[in-house]
Amino acid sequence: MSNIETVPASIEMKPNPTITVFERSPDGGRGLARDMPVRWALEEVGQPYHVRRLSFEAMKEASHFAYQPFGQIPSYEQGDLILFESGAIVMHIAQHHSGLLPEDALRRARTVAWMFAALNTIEPSILNFTTVWLFERNEPWHEARLARTKEQLLKRLDELSAWLGDREWLEGSFSAADILMICVLRRLESSGILKDYGNLLAYVERGKARPAFKRAFDAQLAVFTAASKN
Amino acid sequence: MSNIETVPASIEMKPNPTITVFERSPDGGRGLARDMPVRWALEEVGQPYHVRRLSFEAMKEASHFAYQPFGQIPSYEQGDLILFESGAIVMHIAQHHSGLLPEDALRRARTVAWMFAALNTIEPSILNFTTVWLFERNEPWHEARLARTKEQLLKRLDELSAWLGDREWLEGSFSAADILMICVLRRLESSGILKDYGNLLAYVERGKARPAFKRAFDAQLAVFTAASKN
Repeated sequence: MSNIETVPASIEMKPNPTITVFERSPDGGRGLARDMPVRWALEEVGQPYHVRRLSFEAMKEASHFAYQPFGQIPSYEQGDLILFESGAIVMHIAQHHSGLLPEDALRRARTVAWMFAALNTIEPSILNFTTVWLFERNEPWHEARLARTKEQLLKRLDELSAWLGDREWLEGSFSAADILMICVLRRLESSGILKDYGNLLAYVERGKARPAFKRAFDAQLAVFTAASKN
Repeated sequence: MSNIETVPASIEMKPNPTITVFERSPDGGRGLARDMPVRWALEEVGQPYHVRRLSFEAMKEASHFAYQPFGQIPSYEQGDLILFESGAIVMHIAQHHSGLLPEDALRRARTVAWMFAALNTIEPSILNFTTVWLFERNEPWHEARLARTKEQLLKRLDELSAWLGDREWLEGSFSAADILMICVLRRLESSGILKDYGNLLAYVERGKARPAFKRAFDAQLAVFTAASKN
């Protein structure tokens, strides 16, 4: 929940932020696009936000590159601030509201470490695997690279599972790191791989059970559903 | 604008940090391992540090996993704080010293966006390419995947080059984002690919010309050279 006392006046006076999202997400409304962690963080802290829907064509227009140098979603605009990179946007939200980063300096630094771990250690191993698994089924290298990328992925999941152990969340209380890590792990849901990692599976389900996750998920699904009716 | 992350006295009073590094880096002393951005950041802010050298065997021992949950380098230890993930360590250093993050809140947030962009948008496209290029030369898929990963890489470099334009650094003054981005781009040095991107090449060279970079580079090279004499 938002704590007004921690919000700098300069931020408090700003209008509600606007994020950009896919008009029709390629994930079919499963909440795997990168607006999902941003929506979830905004819902956790109770920050209302606006959404600007972009077609694939609009994402490639010069006007959007002023918001996002790589022509992707999401961007985040609030007053004079224009941000990109979902990890940085989630961190910005967490720094300017209470509840998503520990106040204690040491635990705060550890939480930031897990934010980077989600995006720079775990996610690459997942994307390398899911790219072969989902998009390279007909390539001659499919079987060999599926085995190799799976081996590398399982090593990372073994290590993450070992560290998580019986912990409820990555670093003490629920934090911005859990938002990023759970969104990353959700990319494996349809593969069934997490079934061999009981504590990771339970961890993902704990995240998905939070009311803020559900609100964020429903909001992104509503965008996809509306586009599908056209 | 406010400086969000002020320096707690508890950190200021801490002993010099200790980082872990490869005893014998697999890059042959070229400064491509992930201790390099951490060393560079420490040199930029004038923070002395200790180094603990790890063999490949020591990195896989349970004792190291207490420092680094994925059995990698670098870890960062200072008093009661144990950190991992080079991006998070560089951010921690930047938050607790002046000079690597703008004081202005808006520019600070933009700089953090570029830190994440270096590690979550640019680096994956580089690692996907260099993995095929360096380590999969004898695989039957080498040519096909080299072409594909190069195409994806060039798209990202086009976008980065377009954004950088005539800028000296990514976001105003030299920052922690430049440390991470230049360390990431250096992975392409031996490929010659940056020769087609004059402004990116000049950007990398500007970073390498900084005295702090040179001190960091020489320090990591000295570790490799010492190991090679054994």
